[in-house]
Amino acid sequence: MQSIEEGIEKKLRSISYRIRCSGREVLRDFPITPAQFDVLQYIYFSGDKRMTDVSNYLGITKSTTTGLVQRIVELGYLKKDKSNRDRRSYIIKITNSGKRIIQKVIEKRVEYIKGIIEKIQTDKVEKLSGILSEFLDIIQKK
Amino acid sequence: MQSIEEGIEKKLRSISYRIRCSGREVLRDFPITPAQFDVLQYIYFSGDKRMTDVSNYLGITKSTTTGLVQRIVELGYLKKDKSNRDRRSYIIKITNSGKRIIQKVIEKRVEYIKGIIEKIQTDKVEKLSGILSEFLDIIQKK
Repeated sequence: MQSIEEGIEKKLRSISYRIRCSGREVLRDFPITPAQFDVLQYIYFSGDKRMTDVSNYLGITKSTTTGLVQRIVELGYLKKDKSNRDRRSYIIKITNSGKRIIQKVIEKRVEYIKGIIEKIQTDKVEKLSGILSEFLDIIQKK
Repeated sequence: MQSIEEGIEKKLRSISYRIRCSGREVLRDFPITPAQFDVLQYIYFSGDKRMTDVSNYLGITKSTTTGLVQRIVELGYLKKDKSNRDRRSYIIKITNSGKRIIQKVIEKRVEYIKGIIEKIQTDKVEKLSGILSEFLDIIQKK
């Protein structure tokens, strides 16, 4: 017998996976690979980063990270600024075109969700939204 | 003003992110990097794969993929079998210890969710579970 938490975990996992895939369809229109997009997303949501942060986040070597980031810089989605604290190192920032890709992906996800909730009764959708808020509030207080 | 679908997208995204982080805490107990775990997870959920599939999935070159997979094979979480169709290529499979890591991560996620829903009224949790089922049914019929 599956417990309620096991059921919720599985459903949330499947739903998130499908929403993620739908969003990533947008990437076909851009010259960016999934691995590059992961880096972009990380910097978009958690702010400017040093090469070491990216390397730790991905769990790949510093040299592989440098190559990966460099290719995204060449695409114009990230930029490297000399660090003020340590002139030998760089701060990696997202550019406006980098932000636009993330926003396009989010728009696609929203559109996908819209297509689903249109098929669910309005009061249930509102209930879902409310319970998710409560769920998130508890997470944020943790 | 945020639309209901925008709100649900954002909440689901934040919730999934936090659940994912909680699950991945388990990885500290294993000698596996996040990039290696991504490959493991991909093969666990979508079955045996060729090197080309992994390479396409990650959007990285065939040689980077070969190195990445080889390290996971050395850790004992994946194994490479000669393909029956093409003796020059390999089929990559997950081993029992590989499966155990994924299961540990899922257990951790379930435990994390349990800690949250315990703080929500039972009838709301059941409602959430029911609406998520409906949501997933619609996705699967798409």
